[in-house]
Amino acid sequence: MKNANDMNLDRLFNPNSIVMIGASANPRKWGFIILLNILKGNYIGKVYPVNPKEKSILGYKCYPKVADIPETVDLAIITTPANVVPPLIDECGEKGIPFGIVVTSDFSETGPEGAALERDVVARAEKYGIRLVGPNSMGIFSSMTKLHAQMPPLMPLNGDISMFSQSGNLGVQMLGWGAEEGVGFEKFVSSGNEGDLNCVDYLRYFGQDKDTKVILGYLEGIDPGMELFPVARKISRKKPIIVFKGGRTDAGGRAAATHTGAMAGKSRIFKSALRQAGMLEVKTSQALLDCARAFANCPLPKGNRIGIITRGGGWGVITVDACEENGLKIPPLPEKIIKKLDKHLPKYWSRGNPVDLVATIAHDPYLDCLEVLAEWDGIDAVIALGAGRRAPKYPYSKEVNSPKPVVDAIKMASEYFKRREIKPDWMLEGIGKLVKRTGKPIIVVSIGPEALHRSNLYEFQVVSYPTPERAVRVLWQMYKYRRFLDSQQ
Amino acid sequence: MKNANDMNLDRLFNPNSIVMIGASANPRKWGFIILLNILKGNYIGKVYPVNPKEKSILGYKCYPKVADIPETVDLAIITTPANVVPPLIDECGEKGIPFGIVVTSDFSETGPEGAALERDVVARAEKYGIRLVGPNSMGIFSSMTKLHAQMPPLMPLNGDISMFSQSGNLGVQMLGWGAEEGVGFEKFVSSGNEGDLNCVDYLRYFGQDKDTKVILGYLEGIDPGMELFPVARKISRKKPIIVFKGGRTDAGGRAAATHTGAMAGKSRIFKSALRQAGMLEVKTSQALLDCARAFANCPLPKGNRIGIITRGGGWGVITVDACEENGLKIPPLPEKIIKKLDKHLPKYWSRGNPVDLVATIAHDPYLDCLEVLAEWDGIDAVIALGAGRRAPKYPYSKEVNSPKPVVDAIKMASEYFKRREIKPDWMLEGIGKLVKRTGKPIIVVSIGPEALHRSNLYEFQVVSYPTPERAVRVLWQMYKYRRFLDSQQ
Repeated sequence: MKNANDMNLDRLFNPNSIVMIGASANPRKWGFIILLNILKGNYIGKVYPVNPKEKSILGYKCYPKVADIPETVDLAIITTPANVVPPLIDECGEKGIPFGIVVTSDFSETGPEGAALERDVVARAEKYGIRLVGPNSMGIFSSMTKLHAQMPPLMPLNGDISMFSQSGNLGVQMLGWGAEEGVGFEKFVSSGNEGDLNCVDYLRYFGQDKDTKVILGYLEGIDPGMELFPVARKISRKKPIIVFKGGRTDAGGRAAATHTGAMAGKSRIFKSALRQAGMLEVKTSQALLDCARAFANCPLPKGNRIGIITRGGGWGVITVDACEENGLKIPPLPEKIIKKLDKHLPKYWSRGNPVDLVATIAHDPYLDCLEVLAEWDGIDAVIALGAGRRAPKYPYSKEVNSPKPVVDAIKMASEYFKRREIKPDWMLEGIGKLVKRTGKPIIVVSIGPEALHRSNLYEFQVVSYPTPERAVRVLWQMYKYRRFLDSQQ
Repeated sequence: MKNANDMNLDRLFNPNSIVMIGASANPRKWGFIILLNILKGNYIGKVYPVNPKEKSILGYKCYPKVADIPETVDLAIITTPANVVPPLIDECGEKGIPFGIVVTSDFSETGPEGAALERDVVARAEKYGIRLVGPNSMGIFSSMTKLHAQMPPLMPLNGDISMFSQSGNLGVQMLGWGAEEGVGFEKFVSSGNEGDLNCVDYLRYFGQDKDTKVILGYLEGIDPGMELFPVARKISRKKPIIVFKGGRTDAGGRAAATHTGAMAGKSRIFKSALRQAGMLEVKTSQALLDCARAFANCPLPKGNRIGIITRGGGWGVITVDACEENGLKIPPLPEKIIKKLDKHLPKYWSRGNPVDLVATIAHDPYLDCLEVLAEWDGIDAVIALGAGRRAPKYPYSKEVNSPKPVVDAIKMASEYFKRREIKPDWMLEGIGKLVKRTGKPIIVVSIGPEALHRSNLYEFQVVSYPTPERAVRVLWQMYKYRRFLDSQQ
C-alpha cells in the first residue's frame, strides 16, 4: 500500500470517469438514486453503469461487466448487495481502477460476519492497490467536477469548505442545511466504516488541497494509531480545522460504538489533544455550520476586543453578556471616538460601547457610525446588530375591510415605508468595503422575520446570523484560532 | 395608590375604548404608525384619536381635546413630545381614564432633566389614580381584544404565552420572531422606564390571568424593593416563569445602565434567587422562544430519563451527548422492549437507546417504534429525531437538458418519491395521540431543508426544533421546572 503521505486523492474526488457497479433502473435502489444525483448534478466526466440486465439506465449505456468498459476508469461506485462486493473488487483491480466507494452496508457495522466480509474486501483492494472509501459510506461530493455521488437527492452549494464525516447521515444533512443557509462546500466525503481510507487520510488530503480553505470534521471514533493529531497540527498552521465530536460522553460513546465499529475517544484527553493540535472543537451541529461560514469568508480578528453597534439597547446588552461570558472584551470608547460619533447621533446617545443608535432607522448614520467604530484601533472585530434588517413591510392588508379614506391612508403608509426600505446590498457593500479597508471581521446579526442570514453574502466578505449569541460564539472560535496561530510563530 | 396585590390590569390589556393622544396623519410619526397597527389588527373596541389639527385620521373621527370624547375611556396611549405629557396626564385624570401608556421617550433614560419630567408625570398620574405603562414603552399587545398597540408594524400570533420586557426592542422582536416560528402570544407589554407600573406588577397580573399559561420576562434592572422573588415564587407553583436576564456580566450591567435608568442586578445572587423562586433562567434569546413554545404546548416530563429515536446513527450520538451534558439520562433498553422493537426493525438494528431505525424511511415502522418507546415506563420523555422529515423532493430538473428517455426516467423517479413523501399531519397526529395517551412530552427534531419547525403543531401537542441540541435544552428546563414543582409539595 502506498505511503499515506504521498497519497493523492485527486482522482477520487475529481475522476475523469466513473463506473457505477450496481446501477439500477429501479428508483427504489441506491444504484438508481445515486446515478440520478450524478446526472442532475451535471457531472462533467463520463459515467459507465454496469448492469447485465439493462441496456441503458437514465440515458447512459449499460455494460454487462466492468471489463467491457472501453476506456480507463478512475472511480468505481459500488451499490450491490454486500456478498458480491469481494469478486467485484477483483474485477475493478483487473481493470486498473485506482479508487472505489463502497456504498453498500452490511459489513463490520452489523457484527463479526460482516467484519470478516469487510476484511476480505479490503484485502482484495490492497492486492490491486485500490483505495476504498467505506464500506457503508453515503458517498462523496466535489464541486470542481460537479460530482454529486451522495445518497440523498440534495444539491449542495459550491464553496471553500471541505468536510469528512464519520456519520454519513449527519454529514449529508450538513450539505443540505448548508444549501438552505447559504454555506457552500468544496468537497465532502462520508467515510463510512473506514475499512481502508480513514478520516486522517481525508484530513491530510484536504490540508494539501489548494481549493479547500476550511476543513470540517465530524468524528466519532479515532484509532490511536491514526496520527490524527500530528497531521492536524501541521495543517492547522495553514488552515482552520473545525471538529464536531460525537461520543463526548460515556453514554454517547456507547451509542457511537453500536452504530459504527469504532471506539469513541476518551473525552477529556481527546479534548486537550484537539486543542494542542490547533483544532477548533464545536459543541453543537449549528455551531459547526456557523463557524464554517465565518472562517471561510471573513478575516480573522487580531485579538478579542469587540465593538458593538445596535439599533436597540436590549440587544446590545445581551450581546455584551454573551461576549463577556465567552472571553471576549468590550472596551469602553475613548473621548476621541465619542466625539466622532457625536456628529452622527442624537445628543442623548449612550456614549459607550455598544454604540446604541437609539432607534435611528436610516442607513446613512448606521454606516457612518460603523465606520468610526471599525476604524478605531481599540477593537479587533465588530458585531453589527440589525445591519441586515430591512425596514418593516407595510403592505395594504386585505383583512381590513375599510372605507376608501382608510385604504388610501394605508396605501400612503405602505409607499412611505417602501421608500424607507433598507437596500441590503448597498448596506452590505459598504460593510464589505470597511472589512477590506480595516482587515477586521464585521459580523452582521439580522434579527427578525426579514433577516438576511440565509443569504449568501460572501461577495461582501460578510456573514450574518439570526441571533447575537451565535455571532459571539463564532468570533470566540476565530479568536481562539488566532491565538493558536500566534503561538506557532 | 391602590395596593398592588388588588390591582387588576384587565382594562389596560383589554380596554373597551382607547384615546390616542398624539395621533397623527403623518406616516413618519408613531402616532400614525401605532394607530395603523391598531386598525390593521382589527381591534374590537373603540378608538378616539386626539388631534386638534385633523378632522379624521385613518377613518377615525378626531377630537380636539380628551374632554371632547363623548364616552368613557379605559386607556390613553400617548405619543406626543415629552414636554407636553404632564398636562395631558391631567386631562386624562379629569376624564377619569384609569390607564395610560406613555410611548413618548426623552424621560429618565436621557438624564436628570428627563428624570425630573418623569417624576412630574408619575406624580400627576398618582394624584388621579391613573396607572401608567412607561414612559419610553414600545407598547402592548393583547390577543383577546386584538389590540396591536405596539410600535413595530408586526402581527403577533395568538397563543398562551404572556411576556413583559424591560427592553422594548428585544420584546417586540420576540413577537415578530414568534410569528415567523409559530410561537403565539396572549399578552405583551414593553415596560419602558417603569416610572409607575413595573415588571413585578405585570408578573403578578399574568400570574392571576387565566388566559396566560406561560410567562416570559426579559429583565435588566430590578429594584431590591420590588418583591420580584416572593411574587414569582407563588406564581411558579401554578405556571412557569421563563426569564432572560440582560446585564448578567459586569460589562453587560454597565451597558444596561446606560440605556435604562435601572441598576443591573448582581449576577450570582440574582441567579440563585431566581432558582429559589422557581423561575427558569435561559441564557440566549433563542432559548427564550424555544422554551416558551414547549412549556405552552407539551406535558411536563416526570423525570430526566430520555428515550431517543433516530433515522441516522450520528444524530442519535450527538443527541445522547447533549442530554448527558445537560443532566438528562439515557437509560439502556431492557430485553422486553428490545423484543417488542425487534418486530418492527431489520435484524441488524442496534438494540439500544437511541433506537436507530437504520435508514428506514417509511412512516409506519417509525411510529410503531416510537409507540413502544413512549409507552415504556423506563423513560419520561422522547426526542423523536427526523419524525417531521418529509421524503426528499425529486422534481424534474430544468437544468438537465437531456434526451427523452432521461427526462422520462427522472419523471418516474419524481413520481416515486412523491408517493413516498411523508404526510407530516398523519405522522404528527399519531405522535399527538401518543402524547395524550402516555402523558409524556415527545419533542420532534426535524432536521434539514424540509423541516417543520416553523409550523404550528400545537393541535397535536407537539413542538419541533431544527437541531437536537435545542430540543435537549428545552427538555432540561422542563425537567428543572418539574423538580421545582415536586419540591413544593
